[in-house]
Amino acid sequence: MSKMLAEIREQPTALERTLKAELRGFERLRARFEKERPRLVVLAARGTSDNAAQFGRYLIEVTTGIPVSLAAPSVSTLYHSNLRLEGALLAAVSQSGESTDTNVVLEEAKKQGAFTIGITNEPESTLARIADHAVLVRAGREKSVAATKTYTGQLLSFYLLAYALGAKIRIDDLRLLPDLAAKALTLEKEVAARAEKYKYARHAVVIGRGLNYANAFEWALKMMETCYIIAERFSQADILHGPIAMVEPSFPAFVLAPPGPTWPVMNEMITKLSGLRAETLVLTDKSNAEAPKSALRIPAKLAFKPGKNGPALPEDLLTPIPYIIPAQMFAASLSAVKGLDPDQPRGLSKVTLTL
Amino acid sequence: MSKMLAEIREQPTALERTLKAELRGFERLRARFEKERPRLVVLAARGTSDNAAQFGRYLIEVTTGIPVSLAAPSVSTLYHSNLRLEGALLAAVSQSGESTDTNVVLEEAKKQGAFTIGITNEPESTLARIADHAVLVRAGREKSVAATKTYTGQLLSFYLLAYALGAKIRIDDLRLLPDLAAKALTLEKEVAARAEKYKYARHAVVIGRGLNYANAFEWALKMMETCYIIAERFSQADILHGPIAMVEPSFPAFVLAPPGPTWPVMNEMITKLSGLRAETLVLTDKSNAEAPKSALRIPAKLAFKPGKNGPALPEDLLTPIPYIIPAQMFAASLSAVKGLDPDQPRGLSKVTLTL
Repeated sequence: MSKMLAEIREQPTALERTLKAELRGFERLRARFEKERPRLVVLAARGTSDNAAQFGRYLIEVTTGIPVSLAAPSVSTLYHSNLRLEGALLAAVSQSGESTDTNVVLEEAKKQGAFTIGITNEPESTLARIADHAVLVRAGREKSVAATKTYTGQLLSFYLLAYALGAKIRIDDLRLLPDLAAKALTLEKEVAARAEKYKYARHAVVIGRGLNYANAFEWALKMMETCYIIAERFSQADILHGPIAMVEPSFPAFVLAPPGPTWPVMNEMITKLSGLRAETLVLTDKSNAEAPKSALRIPAKLAFKPGKNGPALPEDLLTPIPYIIPAQMFAASLSAVKGLDPDQPRGLSKVTLTL
Repeated sequence: MSKMLAEIREQPTALERTLKAELRGFERLRARFEKERPRLVVLAARGTSDNAAQFGRYLIEVTTGIPVSLAAPSVSTLYHSNLRLEGALLAAVSQSGESTDTNVVLEEAKKQGAFTIGITNEPESTLARIADHAVLVRAGREKSVAATKTYTGQLLSFYLLAYALGAKIRIDDLRLLPDLAAKALTLEKEVAARAEKYKYARHAVVIGRGLNYANAFEWALKMMETCYIIAERFSQADILHGPIAMVEPSFPAFVLAPPGPTWPVMNEMITKLSGLRAETLVLTDKSNAEAPKSALRIPAKLAFKPGKNGPALPEDLLTPIPYIIPAQMFAASLSAVKGLDPDQPRGLSKVTLTL
């Protein structure tokens, strides 16, 4: 078995560990932010961590109303510009905690008056040391070059960050996530069977929206890294503004289609792809009665329904972690189908240093 | 001749018209922002306009230090969340001014206390009407589905917006842009000859960084729309965090490599691609002495050198408009080489309505 698949399977345990160990730190942050709420959140990251930040961006804006900006590191690292960040919160995300650029962005933001958080899997890393507050993902050492368990650990960290920023998320809801991840893992055999027909696929599109937009980036990245598939990633709206022109019969399209606010537009997308005779794989769950029969379904009802007097949280709130797991398994399976080794993508190493 | 190519050629004249007609409005904005400087800039757009916004993001952060966020429209249109935007400036960009989603984002931002600007080519559009301040790109009616002259008009509008926000850009420097665009147009024949060998190319990557990162998105989009090439776009740092694994011998890579702060890392990228035996086309200009001999060179010295006591502006300040022009011509030529009609991409129409 590949290390990648072994690490995919560790996710329920890893998530439980993260939640348990980090909760206290986030309660402290929550108390801090109650006194002084950040006016702006800036997220800095690269690669898989940047995809997690993309999720954090939607989650924080949707559940707290605080505007979020995804940092453009070169503004600090190459142009040496000083952003005005008084009253802002900057969170840098890096599996290794040694990404030069995100660390530079964090140090600059600190100088400009931002409060800084470092989200990393490595307790002894530079990032954990230089941030005002360190969040440890505690996924256990990640050996596969393709990140999986650190990604879902980062997603969980963003739920906790949104909670600290005043989102009406209940910790008890987050306690459901390890079990939902376990439910997604039960699809392993079905996913492996579905991957077979893509043996000769050279390219693909992955389409998501809202809270699952980040997962479209991450699914595409896993296929680029481990299957050498030229996988484009789009929001359902952006692909309609031009790129849809390249979709022809049999074009592989992967669609993240949870119940909730994004379903109506994603459903339109599925119909459009069907009209173009694309080879569409729809990923959804048991609570989505309208999804096509051929959809890959996580065997759990994921539509989020808070209690009658509960807070207004979106129906797809808890979908991103369980939804990325079949996608990770798909990439690992397809890599094997193609005769590749998902643990050793050509030309990559675990820590990438860029400016 | 295709409408697309005709419109590409109109750009010097269109830019001159935009600058002349809009300057006064931006002087008014500058006076306004001198009294009350926005604490945050949010940019909302889709498709080509979103690529222009990506440029605006870097330009404004680099030259003014004001943090910029690229809006995620679904936060307003699908999740109906209210962002806290008191003291912020929201600029929506849309060629037609009739993009439902960007207009919704603008109206919501207005309600939340933001000052709003609408950048559009259509004076009678909804966007021009609902914004607190309308910026008219005045590129003349754009008939080709693939946007070209409105994109460079939008880039120019962002230079003017940065100026209004206090950037030390001199209007006299912006007056150089129509002539630099004309210089780039002289490459038409060379570009057409270079496009020949990509007749059977099915996929590509386009790589940029900093002020030319947006152009990587736009070059890729033009190839997706008009050549049906599966064109991925990356920053030089992001492609190293995983996607580089998919680059194999003969893989078409397009690299925007101007002089200035991004050159050292882009030069490393060119060396890396050469090591992978990718088919690399480097776009640069006469002021870059270190670029490979095979590079496509705009016949003008584009390295920006402000006077001895002039403001600290980056060396690549004036490159984005001339640099996108050969890329536009490349897409139009390659479309013809492939026997396609760049004016009528399959499945697209000029105005795209999404939420």
